[in-house]
Amino acid sequence: MSTFKAGILGATGAVGQKFIRLLENHPWFTIKALGASDRSAGRPYSEAANWIESSPVPQTIGRMEVRSCRAADFGDVDFVFSGLDSSVATEIEAEFAAAGIPVISNAKNYRTHPTVPLLVPEVNPDHLSLIESQTFSADGTGWIVTNPNCVVVPLVTTLKPLADAYGVESVILTSLQAISGAGYPGVPSLDILGNVIPYIGDEEPKVEAEPLKLLGTLENGIVKEASFSVHATATRVPVMNGHLLSVTVGLGSAPASIDEVADLLSSWKSPVSELDLPSAPEFPMHLYQDQRYPQPRLHADSEGGMQTAVGRLRKAGVLDISYVAMAHNTVRGAAGGAILNAELLVKKGYIQ
Amino acid sequence: MSTFKAGILGATGAVGQKFIRLLENHPWFTIKALGASDRSAGRPYSEAANWIESSPVPQTIGRMEVRSCRAADFGDVDFVFSGLDSSVATEIEAEFAAAGIPVISNAKNYRTHPTVPLLVPEVNPDHLSLIESQTFSADGTGWIVTNPNCVVVPLVTTLKPLADAYGVESVILTSLQAISGAGYPGVPSLDILGNVIPYIGDEEPKVEAEPLKLLGTLENGIVKEASFSVHATATRVPVMNGHLLSVTVGLGSAPASIDEVADLLSSWKSPVSELDLPSAPEFPMHLYQDQRYPQPRLHADSEGGMQTAVGRLRKAGVLDISYVAMAHNTVRGAAGGAILNAELLVKKGYIQ
Amino acid sequence: MSTFKAGILGATGAVGQKFIRLLENHPWFTIKALGASDRSAGRPYSEAANWIESSPVPQTIGRMEVRSCRAADFGDVDFVFSGLDSSVATEIEAEFAAAGIPVISNAKNYRTHPTVPLLVPEVNPDHLSLIESQTFSADGTGWIVTNPNCVVVPLVTTLKPLADAYGVESVILTSLQAISGAGYPGVPSLDILGNVIPYIGDEEPKVEAEPLKLLGTLENGIVKEASFSVHATATRVPVMNGHLLSVTVGLGSAPASIDEVADLLSSWKSPVSELDLPSAPEFPMHLYQDQRYPQPRLHADSEGGMQTAVGRLRKAGVLDISYVAMAHNTVRGAAGGAILNAELLVKKGYIQ
Amino acid sequence: MSTFKAGILGATGAVGQKFIRLLENHPWFTIKALGASDRSAGRPYSEAANWIESSPVPQTIGRMEVRSCRAADFGDVDFVFSGLDSSVATEIEAEFAAAGIPVISNAKNYRTHPTVPLLVPEVNPDHLSLIESQTFSADGTGWIVTNPNCVVVPLVTTLKPLADAYGVESVILTSLQAISGAGYPGVPSLDILGNVIPYIGDEEPKVEAEPLKLLGTLENGIVKEASFSVHATATRVPVMNGHLLSVTVGLGSAPASIDEVADLLSSWKSPVSELDLPSAPEFPMHLYQDQRYPQPRLHADSEGGMQTAVGRLRKAGVLDISYVAMAHNTVRGAAGGAILNAELLVKKGYIQ
Repeated sequence: MSTFKAGILGATGAVGQKFIRLLENHPWFTIKALGASDRSAGRPYSEAANWIESSPVPQTIGRMEVRSCRAADFGDVDFVFSGLDSSVATEIEAEFAAAGIPVISNAKNYRTHPTVPLLVPEVNPDHLSLIESQTFSADGTGWIVTNPNCVVVPLVTTLKPLADAYGVESVILTSLQAISGAGYPGVPSLDILGNVIPYIGDEEPKVEAEPLKLLGTLENGIVKEASFSVHATATRVPVMNGHLLSVTVGLGSAPASIDEVADLLSSWKSPVSELDLPSAPEFPMHLYQDQRYPQPRLHADSEGGMQTAVGRLRKAGVLDISYVAMAHNTVRGAAGGAILNAELLVKKGYIQ
Repeated sequence: MSTFKAGILGATGAVGQKFIRLLENHPWFTIKALGASDRSAGRPYSEAANWIESSPVPQTIGRMEVRSCRAADFGDVDFVFSGLDSSVATEIEAEFAAAGIPVISNAKNYRTHPTVPLLVPEVNPDHLSLIESQTFSADGTGWIVTNPNCVVVPLVTTLKPLADAYGVESVILTSLQAISGAGYPGVPSLDILGNVIPYIGDEEPKVEAEPLKLLGTLENGIVKEASFSVHATATRVPVMNGHLLSVTVGLGSAPASIDEVADLLSSWKSPVSELDLPSAPEFPMHLYQDQRYPQPRLHADSEGGMQTAVGRLRKAGVLDISYVAMAHNTVRGAAGGAILNAELLVKKGYIQ
Repeated sequence: MSTFKAGILGATGAVGQKFIRLLENHPWFTIKALGASDRSAGRPYSEAANWIESSPVPQTIGRMEVRSCRAADFGDVDFVFSGLDSSVATEIEAEFAAAGIPVISNAKNYRTHPTVPLLVPEVNPDHLSLIESQTFSADGTGWIVTNPNCVVVPLVTTLKPLADAYGVESVILTSLQAISGAGYPGVPSLDILGNVIPYIGDEEPKVEAEPLKLLGTLENGIVKEASFSVHATATRVPVMNGHLLSVTVGLGSAPASIDEVADLLSSWKSPVSELDLPSAPEFPMHLYQDQRYPQPRLHADSEGGMQTAVGRLRKAGVLDISYVAMAHNTVRGAAGGAILNAELLVKKGYIQ
Repeated sequence: MSTFKAGILGATGAVGQKFIRLLENHPWFTIKALGASDRSAGRPYSEAANWIESSPVPQTIGRMEVRSCRAADFGDVDFVFSGLDSSVATEIEAEFAAAGIPVISNAKNYRTHPTVPLLVPEVNPDHLSLIESQTFSADGTGWIVTNPNCVVVPLVTTLKPLADAYGVESVILTSLQAISGAGYPGVPSLDILGNVIPYIGDEEPKVEAEPLKLLGTLENGIVKEASFSVHATATRVPVMNGHLLSVTVGLGSAPASIDEVADLLSSWKSPVSELDLPSAPEFPMHLYQDQRYPQPRLHADSEGGMQTAVGRLRKAGVLDISYVAMAHNTVRGAAGGAILNAELLVKKGYIQ
C-alpha cells in the first residue's frame, strides 16, 4: 500500500485538531497541507491553532504553514479531509471537488445531497457508488463523501441489524450528549456544571433525517430513503466525550425473544470487516450485559474510540425493544469516522 | 389553625433531614419526636445524624434525644412522617398505624397497597377516601398515606391534564436523575463525575407502575388503575438536585394543535389551589417557552422546590407529543410532597 | 430613610445582573437607569441582556430601556453602581464623577488611585475620608469609591484582626476560585470539567497589592500602605460560586496560643455593626470548628452571600498560622460588596 | 532477563486493581497469586472484586482464585506487591517478610521504619541499602520497601534538584487532590460535585514528614532526615486523577535568577535513567512554559502516568520560589511507583 497525501480543511478547529491527532501515525495517510481561515493563513500551525488536544501538537505539523482554503493551493494532495464549519463548507467543498480533489467531509452541508454518499462503512458501504453520479468536477476526479452526525452513528449502527432482521418502523430516542460535541470554546461552564440543558440547537432534525438516508436502499443509482419515523430529544450533560442514547424501537415483525435480539447484535458482523481497514474496530458493536454499562467515561475510548457500545437491551412496554447505545462523538462520530470512510475509499479504488 | 405535633421516622437519613429542614418554620406542624435505628436511639440528634443539609441543624432539633421507631414511644405526637428505608418500613409503618398514629410516608412499601392512597394533592385528592377502608388500626384512627417516587411526581402532574383532555395511551420516558436521589453516601463520585450511569436499580418498575394508580379512578371505594403503558429508562447524571424527564406521549384523541396543548398546560389549575395549603406552590406547573429550559440547576428550587417545570413542548413524529418535565426530587419528589400531603389531610379533617 | 435613585453601568454583564438581583427588594435603593454599550442602548433590558441569574428578570427592570453609558443621560439618579469592564471603566467612571454623579465601582481601574477609597466597610471604613481629596468633579459632588478583588475580601477580612493584634509580616496563599468569577461565557466547560487550571490571568498581582492599601493607615489625608508581603497562586476549580483560600501568615508577634487566635477571630466585631446597614451580615466572619468546613457549595450563600467563612485554623510549621477562608465571589466579592459600600456612604452622609 | 513471579496483597481494592492493570503486559513480572480478605478468599477474582478500572479484567486474572493474605499460601511467588489497607498491613507485611518473601508496599505502615527504605528511584536510590539492616526475616531473604504518599512523589521529585543546588529550608504547599486518591467507594458525589473539601484526614502529617526521610542522607547505615520544615494544606477537588500542588519554597542560597532554576529543573537527569527500567518515564520531570499548565485532566497520563509535571515557576514575594507540580496519584503516586521500585530492586539484585 503506497501512502496518500492528505490535506485538512478547517485544520485549526476542534475537528481539524482531532484529524491531526488521529492521523499522527496513520499507516496510509500523511498530512501534507493544512487549510484554515485567511486570518490563520501564512502562520505556522502551532501559532495559528489554539491546540486543545491533551497530547502536544506533532512537531512536523506545528511547523507547517497554514494555507487558505483554496483548491489552487492544494495541488500537492491526493484528497482532503474537511472539518470546515457549516457556514463555509458548501462553497469551499464544492470548489475543491470541482478542482478534482476528493473531499472526505465531516460537515453537514452535503449529507442530504442526492449524489453524495452519507457513509458509515459498517452500515451502507454500497452507497459509495453514488460517487459515480456526481458532477462536481467535469471529469469525475473530484467528489464529496460525508459522514453523519455524531448521534446518528451509534443509532444507525444498532438499527442496521434490526432493520435487516425485523424491519424498523419507529424510533424514539433521547440523547445525553458530551460537551466536546459543541467544539471549542463551546458550552460555557456556567451553563453546564452540575446541570443538564435539554436542548441542542439544530441537532434533532439531523438525528431524525440522516438515519433514513443511511438505511435507505440504492435503486437505479439513487438512494431510496427508509420510511420509518424517528423522534429525538437532544440534551447536553456534563460529560467530556461520548454521546449516550436511550433508544426505543418499534419493529416490523416480532422477535422470538429478547435473547434472539441479543444474539443478533452480539453476532453481527460488519460487511467491511474483511478489508483490514486500519481504523476499523475489531468489534464495531459491543453488547454489554452489565446493566450499568455502557458509560461514556468508561467506554467511549474502547477500540480507539471507534466502537459503538450497547447495553440495557430489553423488551419495552411501548413499541417493542429498548436499549442504550453510546459512541465517542469526536472520534467515531466525527474525525475518526471520516478517516474510516477514507480508508474504505482507498480500498474501493476511489482514492488512488 | 391549631398546631399539630409531628414525629419523624428515619430522622437521621437524607429524607429525614429534609423533613427537618422543610418543617423548620412550618406554620402548622411542630417536630416533637425523632425516630431512628436502635443504634442512634438515646443520643442527641446532632450526634446521631451525619447532617448533610447546607443550613445547620436547627438548635432545638439538635438537642432532641433520638428514639427507637416504636409506636409506644411516640404517644405524644399527632402523626408521623416516615422517611424510613424500605427494608424496615413495612413493619414499622404498620405498627404505628395499628397504634392509632397516622403515617405520612415517603417509603415505597405501601404505595401499591389497595387501601393506601398514593397521593399527589394536585392530581388525585379524591383518593384520600381510601383511608376509610384501611384496617391497620382497629378503630380507624391509624392509617397510612404515601407519596409517589420522585420521577413519578412531575410525570403524573403533566399527564393529568393530558389524560383529562385527550386520554393517555402510552408514555415513553428517559429520566436524567440527580445524585441526591440516591441518599447519602449514595453515588460514589468515582462513578458519576463527568459521566452518566444508564441504570438505576429498582427505579423503572416504580416509574412504570405508580402513574397507573395515581391516574386511576375511584370506583366503589377502590382505585381502578388507568390502563395506559409506560416505558421508562432511568439514568443518573452529575446533577445535585432535580430529576429531568424526556417524555413522549401517545394520546387517545388528537389535539387541535400543539398550541392547544400549551394552553391546556399553562392554564391548568390545581384542584387544591383554593385550600391555601402552606407548602402548595402558587403555580404547581410552569411551562417554559425558552427551548433551553427547564434546567435542574436553574429551576429545581422554583416555588420552594415544589413546582413541576415543563418545556420543549412539541409534536412528536412518533406517538403524539413530546416535552421535558423537571421537579426537585428530594423536595417535591419526597419530603416536600409528604408535607403537602399532610397539609391536605389536615384540611380534609383526617389529621385532627 | 428616604429612597435613593441608583443607576447601573454595565447593566447587561454578569456583575450588572447581580446588582439587579441584589437590589430587587432593597429598602434604600431603587434602580432608575441601566447603562450598557451603544449596541444595547435603546433596547428593552430583557432583550439586551442574556440573563444568567436563576430567578427571572424583575418585570420592571425587563421593560426599562437601556441607555448608553453617558453621564448626560443619567441626570435622574443619585449615584451609579459600576459593573463596567475594565477596558472602558477608566474613562466612563471619570466622566460620571466629573458630572457630579458618585460612582460606586466594582471595576479595578481606580482601586490603586491615591484619592479613591478601596473599601471594605468592616475593614477600613475610615478610608472614606479620601473622597474629600478627590478632584474628579469641580465641586466635589462627584467621586469614586471602589471595592476590592473578590479574593481580597475574605483575605483582608481575616487579616484585619490579625494585623491589629499581632501585626502581619507575610502572607502566602493559594486560591481555588469559582467559575462565576470569570463572568459569562467565561470559562469553557471543556477546560474546567473534572479539571483544575493553575493560573488566572491578571489575578495574582491584584491579590498581592490590594491588601496593602486596604490595611494601610490614613495619614495626612493619604493612605500609607501596609508593608507586609503577599505571595498568591490563583487557580480555577469546577465550582459555581465561592472562592476558597488556603492562607499561611507570618505574624509580627507570637500569639499565646492558637486558641487565642481562634478567640480573636470568633469574637471579632465589625466596626460598622452598629450602623444597621441592610446588606451587612450579622456575623461578617464565621470560624468553623469542623475541619471539613467551610466548603463553597455549602457555605458561600451564608448570610445572603455576605459572610466570610474561616476554618482549619492551626499553627503552621512554616511562618506562624494557617487557615482557609471563603466568600461568595460575585456577592460579597463584587456586587454585594459594592452595595454595602453604598450603604455605608449613605450612613456617612456622602450619598444624600 | 528472566521473568519474576509476583503476588498482589489487597488485590481486590483500588490499588490492587491498578497493580493488575499496570502489570498486564509487564516484560519482567507475571502475576501468580492474588491475596485479599478471608471473605474474598476461595472465589474467582472476577467475582470477588468490584472492578472499577475502565479496561476489563484480564481474563487470566479474572479466573484466578483469590487467596487469603497468609505467607504460607504464597510459596510460589518471588515477591509481593502490597496494596493492603493500613489497618492490616503492619502484621501481614511483617509476616510475609519473615517468611522470606520480599514486600514492595504502597501502604504507609512501614514508611517511617528506620530500616525500611522509603523509595523514589529518581530521588534516593541509595537508600535501598537500608534493606541490609532489616531483621524481618532470619536470613535476610524477606524484607520491605515502601513508596511514599501520592502527594509526596511530585513534591520530592521537584525538591531534589533544588536541595542539591541551593538547599531547601522551608516549604509551604496546598494540594488539590483527585477523588481517586480516596479509593472506592471513597468520596460521596454529594460531597464533592461542584465543591471543594478543604481537609483530607491523615494526609497532611504524611506530606510534612515523608519528604524529610526521602531527602535525608545515608550515614552509617541509617537515614539522617533532612532538616527543613514543610507546611501542607490538603484539599479535595472534583478531579478524577492527578494531584496538583501549589508549592512555595525557601532556599538555603539564592539562585542567580529564576531562569537558572528553570534550567536546573529542565536539565535534571534521573540517577536511574541509564538502567532502562521498563516503567521509568523517559523524562521523569517536565517543566511547562505555558502558564495554564500542567492540568490534571490534560497531563496526569503523560508518560504512562509516571511523569511529574511542573509549571508556573517564578520568584515568590515570600520565601524564594514558587511553582505548581502534578503527578498521577494512583499510578506515579501508588501502584506505578511501587512497580518502578520493584524494577530497581531487580536491577540492583535484591529481587532474584
